[in-house]
Amino acid sequence: MSAAKTNAGNFFEDFTVGQVIEHATPRTITEGDRALYGAIYPTRFAVPSSAEFAASVGLSPHPVEELIGFHVAFGKTVPDVSLNAVANLGYAECRFRSPVVPGDTLRTRSEVIGLKENSNGRTGVVWVRSTATNQREEVAIDWARWVMVHKRSADSPAPETVVPSLADAVAPDDLVVPAGLDFTAYDTAAAGEPHRLGDYEVGERIDHVDGVTLTDAEHMMATRLWQNTAKVHFNTDARPDGRRLVYGGHVISLARALSFNGLANAQLVAAINAGAHVAPAFAGDTVHAWSEVLDTAELDAPGVGALRLRLVATRGRDESTTLRGEDGKYADGVLLDLDYWALVPR
Amino acid sequence: MSAAKTNAGNFFEDFTVGQVIEHATPRTITEGDRALYGAIYPTRFAVPSSAEFAASVGLSPHPVEELIGFHVAFGKTVPDVSLNAVANLGYAECRFRSPVVPGDTLRTRSEVIGLKENSNGRTGVVWVRSTATNQREEVAIDWARWVMVHKRSADSPAPETVVPSLADAVAPDDLVVPAGLDFTAYDTAAAGEPHRLGDYEVGERIDHVDGVTLTDAEHMMATRLWQNTAKVHFNTDARPDGRRLVYGGHVISLARALSFNGLANAQLVAAINAGAHVAPAFAGDTVHAWSEVLDTAELDAPGVGALRLRLVATRGRDESTTLRGEDGKYADGVLLDLDYWALVPR
Amino acid sequence: MSAAKTNAGNFFEDFTVGQVIEHATPRTITEGDRALYGAIYPTRFAVPSSAEFAASVGLSPHPVEELIGFHVAFGKTVPDVSLNAVANLGYAECRFRSPVVPGDTLRTRSEVIGLKENSNGRTGVVWVRSTATNQREEVAIDWARWVMVHKRSADSPAPETVVPSLADAVAPDDLVVPAGLDFTAYDTAAAGEPHRLGDYEVGERIDHVDGVTLTDAEHMMATRLWQNTAKVHFNTDARPDGRRLVYGGHVISLARALSFNGLANAQLVAAINAGAHVAPAFAGDTVHAWSEVLDTAELDAPGVGALRLRLVATRGRDESTTLRGEDGKYADGVLLDLDYWALVPR
Repeated sequence: MSAAKTNAGNFFEDFTVGQVIEHATPRTITEGDRALYGAIYPTRFAVPSSAEFAASVGLSPHPVEELIGFHVAFGKTVPDVSLNAVANLGYAECRFRSPVVPGDTLRTRSEVIGLKENSNGRTGVVWVRSTATNQREEVAIDWARWVMVHKRSADSPAPETVVPSLADAVAPDDLVVPAGLDFTAYDTAAAGEPHRLGDYEVGERIDHVDGVTLTDAEHMMATRLWQNTAKVHFNTDARPDGRRLVYGGHVISLARALSFNGLANAQLVAAINAGAHVAPAFAGDTVHAWSEVLDTAELDAPGVGALRLRLVATRGRDESTTLRGEDGKYADGVLLDLDYWALVPR
Repeated sequence: MSAAKTNAGNFFEDFTVGQVIEHATPRTITEGDRALYGAIYPTRFAVPSSAEFAASVGLSPHPVEELIGFHVAFGKTVPDVSLNAVANLGYAECRFRSPVVPGDTLRTRSEVIGLKENSNGRTGVVWVRSTATNQREEVAIDWARWVMVHKRSADSPAPETVVPSLADAVAPDDLVVPAGLDFTAYDTAAAGEPHRLGDYEVGERIDHVDGVTLTDAEHMMATRLWQNTAKVHFNTDARPDGRRLVYGGHVISLARALSFNGLANAQLVAAINAGAHVAPAFAGDTVHAWSEVLDTAELDAPGVGALRLRLVATRGRDESTTLRGEDGKYADGVLLDLDYWALVPR
Repeated sequence: MSAAKTNAGNFFEDFTVGQVIEHATPRTITEGDRALYGAIYPTRFAVPSSAEFAASVGLSPHPVEELIGFHVAFGKTVPDVSLNAVANLGYAECRFRSPVVPGDTLRTRSEVIGLKENSNGRTGVVWVRSTATNQREEVAIDWARWVMVHKRSADSPAPETVVPSLADAVAPDDLVVPAGLDFTAYDTAAAGEPHRLGDYEVGERIDHVDGVTLTDAEHMMATRLWQNTAKVHFNTDARPDGRRLVYGGHVISLARALSFNGLANAQLVAAINAGAHVAPAFAGDTVHAWSEVLDTAELDAPGVGALRLRLVATRGRDESTTLRGEDGKYADGVLLDLDYWALVPR
């Protein structure tokens, strides 16, 4: 047996600030990905659902859901960045810079932008900025994330601490509107709801009503589709409780799809400002979602506005839309707290 | 929280005869849908399986299974018509008017053609005629169905009763044969069975032998693919028994696929005359099917005939092919009683 | 009920040496198949994953995984050859002769090349050589396999015994390298590992580390995708234990995908020399894999070499990589023993 041939993943000691990692396996996106995404998540947003609708707002060829690009691009970083991760701590400054369409091939590279050993000496936090490019070397998506990673040995010396400065949220002026996007002839009837930018108020909360009970087959199929290889999602022997942990991105996509009911016109994800996977999810859990409007902006593209939204996924429906208890901690049942910008018709 | 933004579905009071509803979310059909359909249902009909076979009978580009179009078109009506349905009571006059091919975008509109309040004052029956059109405004499929819907309030006055006149079955002369269809050079060896129109006799019954045990992951994936949002299919909290009800269309597609064994040359569904979802199906049920030949017809297209078939799905195999007991009620285990026309080689 | 219309499969008496069977249902391969394959198996090989990577090694249009072609081609033989099989006994001389790309339509024909009745008088062994061709009548894949089949009646006389002579392994000179394949500019960083032909030694064993716990939904979806109709995979009533037997090819594809971790550059399957499905697999089993390097060869194509590999799938991880016990029998937990040739960069 040759352990030398297999990838044991990187440990905290293997990262240095400034290091650039070219992640393996470029991946071509196809109409098969769109269909599987629609089979696994109850998505009904008109732009990814209909080539005709997409063309009517200036998007042709027909882009796939932004989160397909995100999950594929993110999955590539797992074998190098987070195979030995203790926890996925956060995201920031994620921008969707050009739509991904079937036939595009994505590759991802990451630069290590921060390191901080934890006081226990056994783990450390690694910050990376990752960039997914297509076959024309255009940036499709870039983002920062930080993860807590095991040290190979508690005896290894701590590196110099470097904590990068990351924005709390992408500023509206920094959002990238896809080339050609024009919402002036937007068809609200076809999209499913009449609400435009001006119909949403900061502070408003929307209970998305519907719920989906998770199955192992579905979350594994989704996670494999993104070529995400983290053992805990697939192998019942990988955790003491014998359960397969649902990939956090699965909950993001599920909550985003559920948010159609009330946010049907939040057509395109433009940026992810922050995200916390608050609690693990497992098969049998019934996931619901609610949203809070955090901000609104008019953008410099015809008919296009932006909603900054908090998307919260919960185990079981929480009509009270409670994010945190009186102690300031996340309320029981909260699975995900995601802060993102969506493009909507003005 | 803003309940105003989300869709609570229509209640009986919201429908008026003559009302036209443009259903949301146009949906583009892709090769991904064909692949998923083949992964979820054991279909082997040569026309949708093989672009070469389809072209050899005059169908190019390569159409997808007719029921893909039906489920997509039907799914669009759910949020407006049957989100608050008590029961899906029936179908009639469903005709497949032009083949659906990858790249086609379907949208559906419905006209309310009948209303009848039930004597209990709490529910009523709504009849709609729905039409799915493609991006060239050609009608792909149209059909009538009626559902029992909750009233918002038992105090609402009853509307004038209008019960539409619907045909018991589509007449052979009213069947639409796809443009160019020519079965004169039909290859029975490639299709899998030698039986042509003349080999089937009215009254003949065929036990399709094979059975498939249902799983929740598969029926949910299928139902989502059609963007059908009825809660009971996805959420274990939506029913007192904690089970996810299998979408009736899932049983239709499963039974149709199982019918290949004995009806391999019933290549294309031309019309659905009537359909009853006799009993609910759940994960763990093993679905079998049998068919009865109800009628035969020669059509005005080269080599093309039609079989009118009763397709019966059962929980467990019923080699006796018993539809109803001596009391006239459906026999135990019958899940589906579907009456349709299929195009076969003469 | 007409049993005459349905296919009861062939029994041992129905086969004669020299008989040619044209199997039903031609099947067009699509990008949907690629996506589903990637959702069901954790495959990350760069050639099937990326159209750009494939083109960079001379393969354009973008071929699908070789095993997709194999499973589809193989599935077509099931209704005629192995519907009444007691056991799938072996494979030999399987060569992948031309890449399968989306849009290709495969059909399969088989010739019976051997027959041998078993001494119990109730079963016999049937050898067939099967050939899958595409729409241009090019051979995509051919292979021999032998199965044990029930006799219809123990009273039927035994046929003359004919046992074909089959090679223990395809000789390196007989491997077919896809037209245009050129590994001279092979990008190991994109492919995920640095190891080339010369880095592997005969006798070396590689534990592929990762494991996947099987679900019924996933193996049924895969098996249906290949239009494989054997009852035991789908119907809990088909076996006394009420379990659905996982299609052996599912374990092959799963083990092959797991082998990426250590064999990321074993890009293309060129031949299958032999294969034994040692033990049945069921939902809940966690499948791991290890490989042994059996041989290496330099081929007459630029930069192209070949690794002959034993791929072993096990229930649970076996870090000791034990194939057989001291008694010469397969060790407990071994599910699959597959001997194949893969093309790798020199």
